[in-house]
Amino acid sequence: MPTSFPPPTGDAEAEDTLSTLGEFGLIARLNAGRAQPAGTLLGPGDDAAVVAAPDERVVACTDVLVEGVHFRLDWSAPDQVGRKAAAANLADIAAMGAVPTALLVGLACSRDTPVETLTALVDGLWAEAGVVGVGVVGGDVAASPTLVLSVTALGTLEGRAPVTRAGARPGDVLAICGRVGWSAAGLAVLARGFRSPVAVVGAHRVPDPPYAAGPQAAKAGATSMIDISDGLIADLGHVARASGVLLDVRSRAFDVPARLVDVGAALGVDPLQWVLTGGEDHALAATFSGPLPEGWTEIGTVRAGDPAVLVDGRPYEGPPAGWDHFTR
Amino acid sequence: MPTSFPPPTGDAEAEDTLSTLGEFGLIARLNAGRAQPAGTLLGPGDDAAVVAAPDERVVACTDVLVEGVHFRLDWSAPDQVGRKAAAANLADIAAMGAVPTALLVGLACSRDTPVETLTALVDGLWAEAGVVGVGVVGGDVAASPTLVLSVTALGTLEGRAPVTRAGARPGDVLAICGRVGWSAAGLAVLARGFRSPVAVVGAHRVPDPPYAAGPQAAKAGATSMIDISDGLIADLGHVARASGVLLDVRSRAFDVPARLVDVGAALGVDPLQWVLTGGEDHALAATFSGPLPEGWTEIGTVRAGDPAVLVDGRPYEGPPAGWDHFTR
Repeated sequence: MPTSFPPPTGDAEAEDTLSTLGEFGLIARLNAGRAQPAGTLLGPGDDAAVVAAPDERVVACTDVLVEGVHFRLDWSAPDQVGRKAAAANLADIAAMGAVPTALLVGLACSRDTPVETLTALVDGLWAEAGVVGVGVVGGDVAASPTLVLSVTALGTLEGRAPVTRAGARPGDVLAICGRVGWSAAGLAVLARGFRSPVAVVGAHRVPDPPYAAGPQAAKAGATSMIDISDGLIADLGHVARASGVLLDVRSRAFDVPARLVDVGAALGVDPLQWVLTGGEDHALAATFSGPLPEGWTEIGTVRAGDPAVLVDGRPYEGPPAGWDHFTR
Repeated sequence: MPTSFPPPTGDAEAEDTLSTLGEFGLIARLNAGRAQPAGTLLGPGDDAAVVAAPDERVVACTDVLVEGVHFRLDWSAPDQVGRKAAAANLADIAAMGAVPTALLVGLACSRDTPVETLTALVDGLWAEAGVVGVGVVGGDVAASPTLVLSVTALGTLEGRAPVTRAGARPGDVLAICGRVGWSAAGLAVLARGFRSPVAVVGAHRVPDPPYAAGPQAAKAGATSMIDISDGLIADLGHVARASGVLLDVRSRAFDVPARLVDVGAALGVDPLQWVLTGGEDHALAATFSGPLPEGWTEIGTVRAGDPAVLVDGRPYEGPPAGWDHFTR
């Protein structure tokens, strides 16, 4: 323990903060007891980490979460925020058809943040990283009036070509794997002041991306793929523009789960709206020229035409599609 | 231009912000006209980037800069902040004996930040990346009350073992390459309300790390290496502890530049203090068991003993060593 002045009162360990521990003391605390997987050739504690990149390429992405914008600590526990930050990045790696190999985290937080809050955040990063067998190999902590997590994920393509947003061709089948609409339903519940049903609130707090479906789709010859982070229609728009195609989503393809139907009835919302425009579930959408791999559901078609996303042949006329934090 | 409401008044382009452009419009603006080097196999615009990792390993580090803590936009122009954020990370890659291959950036900023400020920040990242021939391959932008840059650098070891902090052995020679004390002198000048001499103020605004000296030292058999980001004595402390050795710095080894002597005289500060404890110049310190490579200066010895850093055989008794943002 640092010999800080004034001396700590009560339970010093629980009351530690960045101010009392200092940057290096805090980092030591956050790294204590973590076990790195075999692919981490050199873990935290040096100027940089070293991670295996077995096919001579590394896939890399960064995603930023800001308190009050992307999460609220009164709606989510810190470990849930950590899991969500990790999931957003790990899903991006999967969406390239790649397998994650490591996470790094840039953590900006108030000097007075209790160390147990930060430990829980990092526990959450590790928990989600553990789902795919990777570790948090490095990062940085800095004082900031606003709590910001900037997570970087690395991955390997295992010798395959990356599956980009640009490969969809007319005649391909459009498909998804994973849940859509659950997180948005959970957010709607929380925004009305409720804390249940647990199934949808939990889906908002901690997404459950189908990580393995990314490499699976790549192996099955997916022609394009994207992580559904901003909402199905909004994210399919990126595929349509990058590929120069028209995507037509068939609304009846979605077997809207009873949970979402019930929550929608309670809140007076058409649950299909959550399915089509809700973000943060991190399902994967992909296009295939051949048979779909197991676990994927056909939801539409790829056609020639000016880049656009249609629903049942028409422009979507529900509430604004997509989640853009700046313009909300 | 987006057809926003209310319509823009005056010079719409200069007045654009995150709020008017939205996340994707802003990202498009920030990425416009950038040319990626050959090692960027897939650049921005997809779920993740793909970067070459020719020896089947990737070196990775993350560094966070926060407005008001690590920089002030009244003391540094936005492009200088971008350069500094990039330099801090690129120097960490060099300190492993590695060569940078890419940068990613997590940018959290106010919705009202003028797009030209953000473009300048990213211009700075690109300018510094250009010094070592790499590009900004990906990232994310998020709304935040506080401006935070979280930069991740990737690198390649070119087949060599990483040079860690843990390899210094008694009998090795301690050496540095690059400037020390300049940034601290510049900060002292700015803190007193001055804007000159330009040489030291400029060093604070944009460091000039000896990137090539990292791989050079590795090839010359450096036994340990570290980036001097928090101050020479503080950072050598990491080497002493990781290696289990005593490092004895010889103060007369430093040929304190006339510039620092002059500024020290003007401000009533012993310039050796800046040399020994000033951070953010991102010089490299390393230990060698054989001859020093060209451009490196011997500054001390490595001895057996309890891990510690001495100056002229004694504990340093100047002002507190090191720069720890949390405990200041």
